[in-house]
Amino acid sequence: MKSKTTYKRTVQPAEVDFSLRATIVSMIGYVLDIAGIDADEKGFGLKKLHDDNRSWVLSRMALDFYRLPEKYEKIDVTTWVNNYGRLITTRNFTINDENNHRIFAAVTQWAMIDLSTRQPLDLCYVSEYDNHICADSSPIEHPRKVAQANPTKTKTHEVAYSDIDFNRHVNTLRYFSLMLDMLPIEMLSNTNAAHVEINFLHESQYGDTLTIGYEQRDTKSIFEIKNNNNIAICRAAIEFRKM
Amino acid sequence: MKSKTTYKRTVQPAEVDFSLRATIVSMIGYVLDIAGIDADEKGFGLKKLHDDNRSWVLSRMALDFYRLPEKYEKIDVTTWVNNYGRLITTRNFTINDENNHRIFAAVTQWAMIDLSTRQPLDLCYVSEYDNHICADSSPIEHPRKVAQANPTKTKTHEVAYSDIDFNRHVNTLRYFSLMLDMLPIEMLSNTNAAHVEINFLHESQYGDTLTIGYEQRDTKSIFEIKNNNNIAICRAAIEFRKM
Repeated sequence: MKSKTTYKRTVQPAEVDFSLRATIVSMIGYVLDIAGIDADEKGFGLKKLHDDNRSWVLSRMALDFYRLPEKYEKIDVTTWVNNYGRLITTRNFTINDENNHRIFAAVTQWAMIDLSTRQPLDLCYVSEYDNHICADSSPIEHPRKVAQANPTKTKTHEVAYSDIDFNRHVNTLRYFSLMLDMLPIEMLSNTNAAHVEINFLHESQYGDTLTIGYEQRDTKSIFEIKNNNNIAICRAAIEFRKM
Repeated sequence: MKSKTTYKRTVQPAEVDFSLRATIVSMIGYVLDIAGIDADEKGFGLKKLHDDNRSWVLSRMALDFYRLPEKYEKIDVTTWVNNYGRLITTRNFTINDENNHRIFAAVTQWAMIDLSTRQPLDLCYVSEYDNHICADSSPIEHPRKVAQANPTKTKTHEVAYSDIDFNRHVNTLRYFSLMLDMLPIEMLSNTNAAHVEINFLHESQYGDTLTIGYEQRDTKSIFEIKNNNNIAICRAAIEFRKM
């Protein structure tokens, strides 16, 4: 079973914006959702890990989209794990449309933590892993370190109940929403293609006050979210592309 | 085909909070999602309406939950339309667990609007309706008018891109999140059962600054969201119950 697995999805009305195309956050939602489902099906998902008080946390992600699918469009989301080291494992994604044209690709890197100590664990723990590594190369370059932003626009956000997940920290999609909400709305609704990189550096929790900083550096939108102790929580860079 | 329809769902990790049970907002998400899917399957959903520049908008909702399902729990969501007048139609929901115990019930009332004028339309437009009305009575009382709040706690929120839906107004789940985020977190993570009523009075849009007001009146948590012109957007009341 050392193969890629494909999951079929249909873009739902709740996943599109007023341009009637899936939002970037919805596309990242597919990636996170299917990462969880696929890991569970292969025996190293949260169903198994939670019994041992462990969890996966996303460390870095790089993604390219070439077109945002429309409402009710059927898409194929394909995923495979092609690599793991002592602390980081790499899971890849491609999304193709019904004509088998690639419209999206992502590379995600994950660490495993102990839920009590919040410290990373050695991935040798996952004995099922070796049976499911697919040697195919990643569809785009691996995520890199995102440069620090020099924000020209900032906004604060107090972390609320609706922002946190089962791990008690702010959920990944919420970080993306907080950052994308800093952009002029036309940049989001008019876009056809972009390259996105994000690094997760620390957790943030209920009651933290986050400062979201945004800087437009040439064609790159650069973001940094810090907590009230001035510690960087995550950094991201988005380059919208003309197609 | 004048019958109820049942859709199977499994509670996903992204739908639970740190108590590892589905959030109230996730449960309402099932209701809204399945309202859309069921209407589409029966020929009067957004797939048909958008061709004529029309849309459904939620007017009122009442819901009871008796238990919040746990992560990975399998649930059956059953829905039926049992009534429509000139302007309002009533769609009902029950959610049962695998042991066929009812854990949730809701009554939702919807209006149809013209997307250009934003005015309500006569429901005689929906000729498919008569073929799909199921006479079974609603599982709980219909939603009532929610009393105005006298807020003792308020918070403001500027409507951002991530808050709005394909209709360009703030999406229903976001209103619920904004209100529930006003409550002490223990009220949400410790709860087993509640009765919820919500009235939607006006739309709010990108760029509006909302004020969320909260008042605790005996056992009832009462909410009101107003826009920057002091117009009430929605009102809700939640009564948490000991089981």
